[in-house]
Amino acid sequence: MNTYSPEIEVAIARVRSDVAKLHGELVRYGLVIWTGGNVSGRVPGADLFVIKPSGVDYDDLAPANMILCDLDGKVIPGTPGAERSPSSDTAAHAYVYRHMPEVGGVVHTHSTYAVAWAARAEPIPCVITAMADEFGGEVPIGPFSIIGDDSIGRGIVETLTGHRSRAVLMQNHGPFTIGKDARDAVKAAVMVEDVARTVHISRQLGEPKPMPTEAIDALFDRYQNVYGQAPQGAL
Amino acid sequence: MNTYSPEIEVAIARVRSDVAKLHGELVRYGLVIWTGGNVSGRVPGADLFVIKPSGVDYDDLAPANMILCDLDGKVIPGTPGAERSPSSDTAAHAYVYRHMPEVGGVVHTHSTYAVAWAARAEPIPCVITAMADEFGGEVPIGPFSIIGDDSIGRGIVETLTGHRSRAVLMQNHGPFTIGKDARDAVKAAVMVEDVARTVHISRQLGEPKPMPTEAIDALFDRYQNVYGQAPQGAL
Amino acid sequence: MNTYSPEIEVAIARVRSDVAKLHGELVRYGLVIWTGGNVSGRVPGADLFVIKPSGVDYDDLAPANMILCDLDGKVIPGTPGAERSPSSDTAAHAYVYRHMPEVGGVVHTHSTYAVAWAARAEPIPCVITAMADEFGGEVPIGPFSIIGDDSIGRGIVETLTGHRSRAVLMQNHGPFTIGKDARDAVKAAVMVEDVARTVHISRQLGEPKPMPTEAIDALFDRYQNVYGQAPQGAL
Amino acid sequence: MNTYSPEIEVAIARVRSDVAKLHGELVRYGLVIWTGGNVSGRVPGADLFVIKPSGVDYDDLAPANMILCDLDGKVIPGTPGAERSPSSDTAAHAYVYRHMPEVGGVVHTHSTYAVAWAARAEPIPCVITAMADEFGGEVPIGPFSIIGDDSIGRGIVETLTGHRSRAVLMQNHGPFTIGKDARDAVKAAVMVEDVARTVHISRQLGEPKPMPTEAIDALFDRYQNVYGQAPQGAL
Repeated sequence: MNTYSPEIEVAIARVRSDVAKLHGELVRYGLVIWTGGNVSGRVPGADLFVIKPSGVDYDDLAPANMILCDLDGKVIPGTPGAERSPSSDTAAHAYVYRHMPEVGGVVHTHSTYAVAWAARAEPIPCVITAMADEFGGEVPIGPFSIIGDDSIGRGIVETLTGHRSRAVLMQNHGPFTIGKDARDAVKAAVMVEDVARTVHISRQLGEPKPMPTEAIDALFDRYQNVYGQAPQGAL
Repeated sequence: MNTYSPEIEVAIARVRSDVAKLHGELVRYGLVIWTGGNVSGRVPGADLFVIKPSGVDYDDLAPANMILCDLDGKVIPGTPGAERSPSSDTAAHAYVYRHMPEVGGVVHTHSTYAVAWAARAEPIPCVITAMADEFGGEVPIGPFSIIGDDSIGRGIVETLTGHRSRAVLMQNHGPFTIGKDARDAVKAAVMVEDVARTVHISRQLGEPKPMPTEAIDALFDRYQNVYGQAPQGAL
Repeated sequence: MNTYSPEIEVAIARVRSDVAKLHGELVRYGLVIWTGGNVSGRVPGADLFVIKPSGVDYDDLAPANMILCDLDGKVIPGTPGAERSPSSDTAAHAYVYRHMPEVGGVVHTHSTYAVAWAARAEPIPCVITAMADEFGGEVPIGPFSIIGDDSIGRGIVETLTGHRSRAVLMQNHGPFTIGKDARDAVKAAVMVEDVARTVHISRQLGEPKPMPTEAIDALFDRYQNVYGQAPQGAL
Repeated sequence: MNTYSPEIEVAIARVRSDVAKLHGELVRYGLVIWTGGNVSGRVPGADLFVIKPSGVDYDDLAPANMILCDLDGKVIPGTPGAERSPSSDTAAHAYVYRHMPEVGGVVHTHSTYAVAWAARAEPIPCVITAMADEFGGEVPIGPFSIIGDDSIGRGIVETLTGHRSRAVLMQNHGPFTIGKDARDAVKAAVMVEDVARTVHISRQLGEPKPMPTEAIDALFDRYQNVYGQAPQGAL
């Protein structure tokens, strides 16, 4: 059984609470059904993250059944929730935390419109200002990879490294999003479904107008640095 | 009036409770409107199943008005709810229980996207990983048959026997799903609508990428045997 | 001020209560927004009907602000709610009650998919069994007419007289439905949007299979005479 | 710190309350996600308006954190909420209030179907009677402009001046709506998404029938002058 400093214990408790609660946002925005989808959050100051258990009802998620893992995705024995299996996507989350130290949260869903683009392996073009604000350009496609080794995590990291977008659509699978913390990654998951839906619907009846690159750059810069009640550093 | 052993009475009470409650999941996921749709569950250890009454509001469903039937679909007289007519799809459910002993739950809905594929008599192709997980390949079409004899039940059984899919889309009619118990069949009903919707939307703007057969097989095998908190045997 | 027999007063009170409550079903099924849409119910045994006030929030509807009208659509002075204007569609409802004595309820909405068919003036073809059950064939289009005289009411009556369907899609306008009472007309409004949506979605990716006329006839006959807890006479 | 007459203080308090509450209607009708979208209301009798803070959760909006601004969009120091930044669209709202004295409310959302038309820079044609009632003709497109100066406000004012429509779709961006007060502008935001959706869906399977100009004029005139419980002056 591991023991942590009081500061780390406080940080773990806060991330457990945040991650448990943020799953409710996936339900609220209709991004998940049954037990699908998962949110994780890195514990600041420790090589640890907190993730949802596998195959448990959204109604039953609570801080005490969130699962604490190390950055290899191994459950920390003797901690609350450790008697359960973590999300089957834990290895992919762990890979992201190991290779992208600036990432503090990861989210995966099978939200409808994002999966629809992913099944065609087609990036979402940036044709609306809200998408320029949030993603700074197109939302890219990641490689086809199936669960069972590091290939999903590697595909996420290779696609998003050096990219403005906090969302990647893994081919035939669905969106993974990253953020500076779990809440920021959940926001990206909500927004990527919204832009996937809106651009899909726009294209059903013709071609959306392209936006000038300078406008996309200006919107992204402003939104990442000025919007909201306090500056948010770009990831 | 029938009398059952105390063990069977306990099993009946539990299935009544499960079946009544699971109807709420059909409402939650938007699979049914007005009084349409129905869930049934087999009573373990007895030649009995429990099903919804016909034409009763979802708000009014409760364990005590679920209806107990034998495997010919006949209401067991003198049991709670027996004064009402069972679901008009009772004969189809009964046929499935008689001919598929491994089935413990049956669900029927008119969920929008599944019916849309059914009206075109077009199977849903397996182009997303969540569909490979859940159904192991395409979701098949069953024959056109109308209510009134055994033809719906026979169509379900003939289509699903030896098939990985727990869902069949009866032509011009809608989905029937089976499962190891009522909850598992409800999950299949939720998932079949989700994949019907996602693949429909993906195909609106082009052709989804096919997935390699080996990947579909690997995903189905893993999901049926590893996912969740305890192994789920494939049906 | 009118006075009615105690029996009629009881009937008025019941219809007020039913009509007020049934508006909640329009909201529940997403058929109306803001103050749009209206339900009315005939008072059995009297030349009267009860209808929603004009331009009042759905949250504020209650039995006491429903409005009592005669069959010319004139508000009965001195009755609860009479200080307000009735729905701007009152004349159309009144026309239906005057000319179709078997009708006990009328509903009008601008539900999305039904209006989409109405704007193209295209009847909904009967390609799913639920539609055969409920409407016995296609849902017809009524003439283009604008509010201000009897032309909407006349268009409804001329289209539905002798037709199995309890729903008509008034061109460029939207659905009107009738029923043996207000609840039955609300059910028709819910079902017409559901079939409008499902058939629309099915046709987006190809042509639905037609159903044999004999099957449509058999389904309609069975559903109108056998379904539910007690026989429902066809309208 | 400013001081206002008791009458103006009462008016400010009422607008704060209205604006805070009306944001709930944007959520109820699914027009906004996360912290997007904003409602403002002019304070009658003063050169002031009240608007939402930037980047704050919808669940946390209350009269006391709405922000009071002058008609240049500057926050009035020392008033409740003044410690926060106002909506990043405040300059556009202010421009409208300065140049359109008859406008008492402004709303901006990224509602899905309205943005879909905006991304194609295609006005919504008036092919349904509800749209003739509410907007008196097509909903126009405004110029492409990005946040940062007066260009969005100017685009709104130039497009809507002399136009019947209370909604403009800013190219690649989304709808702005105006009204005689905040509630009227919110109604226009709800209705523009509804007609954007309905006309989109209608056009997916063919061309909607055009409506005669005289009918559109008659419907608009009647609705603006007769509908509801008291005459509403056209804006």
